Amino acid sequence: MLRGKIMERAGVLFYERGFAATSIRDIADAVGISSSTLYHHFTNKQEVLHAIAVNFMRDFVAETTVVLRDTSRTPTERIRETVRLHLTISDDRRPELVVGNPIRYGLDQAQRRDAIRLQTEYHDAVRDVISQGNAAKEFDIVDIPLTTMALLDMLNGVREWFRRSGPLSLDQIIDRYTAFSLRILGASPAPSTG
Amino acid sequence: MLRGKIMERAGVLFYERGFAATSIRDIADAVGISSSTLYHHFTNKQEVLHAIAVNFMRDFVAETTVVLRDTSRTPTERIRETVRLHLTISDDRRPELVVGNPIRYGLDQAQRRDAIRLQTEYHDAVRDVISQGNAAKEFDIVDIPLTTMALLDMLNGVREWFRRSGPLSLDQIIDRYTAFSLRILGASPAPSTG
Repeated sequence: MLRGKIMERAGVLFYERGFAATSIRDIADAVGISSSTLYHHFTNKQEVLHAIAVNFMRDFVAETTVVLRDTSRTPTERIRETVRLHLTISDDRRPELVVGNPIRYGLDQAQRRDAIRLQTEYHDAVRDVISQGNAAKEFDIVDIPLTTMALLDMLNGVREWFRRSGPLSLDQIIDRYTAFSLRILGASPAPSTG
Repeated sequence: MLRGKIMERAGVLFYERGFAATSIRDIADAVGISSSTLYHHFTNKQEVLHAIAVNFMRDFVAETTVVLRDTSRTPTERIRETVRLHLTISDDRRPELVVGNPIRYGLDQAQRRDAIRLQTEYHDAVRDVISQGNAAKEFDIVDIPLTTMALLDMLNGVREWFRRSGPLSLDQIIDRYTAFSLRILGASPAPSTG
C-alpha cells in the first residue's frame, strides 16, 4: 500500500516539476514519511520512476489486450473499443505516462526496455486485430505493420495537446478518432468522421 | 558562415550525445575554433540550440508553405506534396529537429515559443488546404481542426521510428503515408494504400 502511495505521489511530482527537479525528500514529504522509510521501498528516484512506468504499462496492456483478443467480437468492434480505451487511459493516468514522454530519459536503458517490451505487446495485439480484420475483408490494407504504426502514432499524439478544459470533450475526441482510425484501416462501409 | 558551421556541428553533437552532455568546448573543438571565438557568435549553449531550432523551422515552413499556398494546384495535389516534403525534410535534417524532440527542454520558454510560432504557421497552412479541399468536395471532413491534428501527429510519428537501414525505403514510406493521409481526409475516390 505504502509502495503504491509513494508511486502515486511521485508520479504527480515528476509530472508537475520534472524528474530532475524532484528529490527523494520531496517525494517523502508529499507522502508524509521520512526519506529513510522511502529508501526502505526504493533504492533511488529512478527506481520509483521505473516502477511507475512498468505498473502503468502493465495495466494498459492488461485492459486493452482483453478487448483485442476477444474473438467473440469483430475486428471493427475491437478497434473501436481499443481507440476508446487508449485515449481514456492515457487521459485518466497522464502523470504515469512515461513511455513516449521526455521523462523516460530519466530511466536507464534496461529500465526503458521493460516499458518498451510492454508497449510492444500492445502494438502486436493491435497489429493482429488489424491483420484479422483485413483477412475477414472488414478492412482494406496493403501494409499491416505500417498501418499499425500510423494508427498508434495518431492516437499517441492526442495526449500531447488534449486538455479537459478545451473546446471538445474526451467523448467527442474519441468519436472523431474512432472515425479516423476506421478510415486509415479502409473499414467498409467507409465511416463518416461525424 | 562560421555561425552556420557552429550550428551544424553543434546540432550533430546535441543529437548524438544529448544537450546536457555537450559543452561549449566540445562544440568549439568540433568546429576547430577556440571557445572564445565561439562566444563571439553565441552567448551560451542554449542560444546555439535556439538558433538551430528556429533556422530549421523557418526552412521547413518556407518550403512547405510555397506548396500549401500554391492555388494553381488542387488541395489533393498540395497534400500529396506536403506529405512528401514533411517526411523528407524531417529525415534529411533529423539532428536539427528540436520541436517535438526531448532536446527542446534545453530551451527556455521564450525560445521555445519562437519555434512553436513557426510550427503553428505550418499547422495553419495545412489546415487551410484541408478546409479548401473540403469546400471543393475533394475531401469529406466533419472536424477540420481535429483532422489537421490527427494528420500531423501521424506524420510526426514517423521520425521516431524510421531508419534508413530499415525494411522500407523513405519513398515507400511516403507512398503509404500519402495514402493514409488521403484516407483520413476522406479523399474521393478513396485511394488504395498500395
